[in-house]
Amino acid sequence: MLSAPEHQVAGHRAAEGQLGPLVDGAGLFYKPLQGDDRGAHEAAFYSSFSSDPRVPPHVRAFFPGFHGTQLLPASDGSGPHPHLVLDDLAVGLRRPSLIDLKIGARTWYPSASDEYFRKCLKKDRDSTSLALGFRVSGVRIHQGGDAGFWQPDRDAIRRFTAKDVRRTLRQFVSSNPSSDADPPDCAFASTVYGGSNGVLAQLLELKAWFEDQTLFHFYSASVLVMYEMEEVEAGRAGGEVRVKLVDFAHVMEGNGIIDHNFLGGLCSLIKFISEILTDPDECLVEPKKAHLSFENEC
Amino acid sequence: MLSAPEHQVAGHRAAEGQLGPLVDGAGLFYKPLQGDDRGAHEAAFYSSFSSDPRVPPHVRAFFPGFHGTQLLPASDGSGPHPHLVLDDLAVGLRRPSLIDLKIGARTWYPSASDEYFRKCLKKDRDSTSLALGFRVSGVRIHQGGDAGFWQPDRDAIRRFTAKDVRRTLRQFVSSNPSSDADPPDCAFASTVYGGSNGVLAQLLELKAWFEDQTLFHFYSASVLVMYEMEEVEAGRAGGEVRVKLVDFAHVMEGNGIIDHNFLGGLCSLIKFISEILTDPDECLVEPKKAHLSFENEC
Repeated sequence: MLSAPEHQVAGHRAAEGQLGPLVDGAGLFYKPLQGDDRGAHEAAFYSSFSSDPRVPPHVRAFFPGFHGTQLLPASDGSGPHPHLVLDDLAVGLRRPSLIDLKIGARTWYPSASDEYFRKCLKKDRDSTSLALGFRVSGVRIHQGGDAGFWQPDRDAIRRFTAKDVRRTLRQFVSSNPSSDADPPDCAFASTVYGGSNGVLAQLLELKAWFEDQTLFHFYSASVLVMYEMEEVEAGRAGGEVRVKLVDFAHVMEGNGIIDHNFLGGLCSLIKFISEILTDPDECLVEPKKAHLSFENEC
Repeated sequence: MLSAPEHQVAGHRAAEGQLGPLVDGAGLFYKPLQGDDRGAHEAAFYSSFSSDPRVPPHVRAFFPGFHGTQLLPASDGSGPHPHLVLDDLAVGLRRPSLIDLKIGARTWYPSASDEYFRKCLKKDRDSTSLALGFRVSGVRIHQGGDAGFWQPDRDAIRRFTAKDVRRTLRQFVSSNPSSDADPPDCAFASTVYGGSNGVLAQLLELKAWFEDQTLFHFYSASVLVMYEMEEVEAGRAGGEVRVKLVDFAHVMEGNGIIDHNFLGGLCSLIKFISEILTDPDECLVEPKKAHLSFENEC
């Protein structure tokens, strides 16, 4: 029995009359190939990546396992449709908090069509991508116990400023994520972001690969972070914090050049996470400024 | 007695009727403030930077020392003109090989005017900036002994492809830089790029700062690398390889965010240099490709 995934916060959702991914509840995730070549492109990436011996196993672990493509009844009722068969990254998680972070100041690539270039450039400028090197694409934060979760709607996320992103990354590891009155308490920062298997350690491992690899350029790909609130409350996280890369419809060949666009954004994200670990109590203090007086340009 | 600097490979040159920098031959470099606020902007940066206690001394050493501004007769004969008074980075060098590398895939900044944005974007796309995260702005390579130097003209440099940049970084440390027949021999790679005071070590030190610093964003700034051919031939380089940052007319406040644009380009340059050190004999072999078949977009 296939169903729409419970824990999706970004991308197209499967629904009545709408094409979206499906899960089998036993560990597989079926992603319908998107039209206009994006689907074929993503399938080509998975196929190339999964058989490339130059990708070390510890890096491969950041990517969903790929099990080919399969014709399945589309979720929109339009009949058989090709799907990527991938590992379900949320398997075994009952109440995961998750955040989808689209990495890179630039989501367009040199060979993009003029229309695509213009669309991406506008989104990059309107969102935090240009300024921060990444943007939040979706987030859900469980409140612990049975208190439900907090999930800002997509329009709100699209309007996130740098300050909102800074706050969201704190809320993501707080026991009071939805409070407007109090600053996020960052109660779970050291458990989720810190430690030898925490988010920071995993991002640094990814970064080391991106400093070296020249195989692929990951435009518009996301870092997806997930953890189980129950585990964290019981102090059992660590091994259970999942950091994955997803969304490869716009991966390009690297041609011997590192993916400096993705790497720069990743380093920016790493800096945000590091600061939360260094100053978990700092209540969104404005960053210290350089004392410049630039009359005309700033 | 002021005169035009001997070893300039990029930027405006002082000449009859032309405004450009001057040197006093005793260690000072006078850079005329450019019009349209760029000059005032660069002066504001130097003033802020040189007095900011958060910049550690080993980082400060990458920047020209700043000694205020001074009214001097302009090189174009137009009368007194304000100049930045800076350390002459080439002081003491008799026959330096030098390369000016403008860092960053993007030379425009979020607050740029539409006209400036468009001009920069076009240059970034037409040059290697977008693809590599940096471009060559100027280069001069001495041939050793009295054989003179090789310096491609500016139009040729503007047309540099990724392959040309790869080759130029090899020529820069070769004893046969101007040969068309033979591949660059990379005879001086280990002396200039390698070692504890070589280019790679210094770039890695800069990189560590850029991973952390959120004070400034260095749009359109350059890494300038210089070494004395005579020293290298005599096997005495190391300490004498100079790596400096220059050109700060478009530095912006960092506002608590790392300069992911500069950092990404710097990492890309570091990868190029590392590869030359790893494979000094590799004669411009085409980089190994990922086996993708992207029909429409690549």
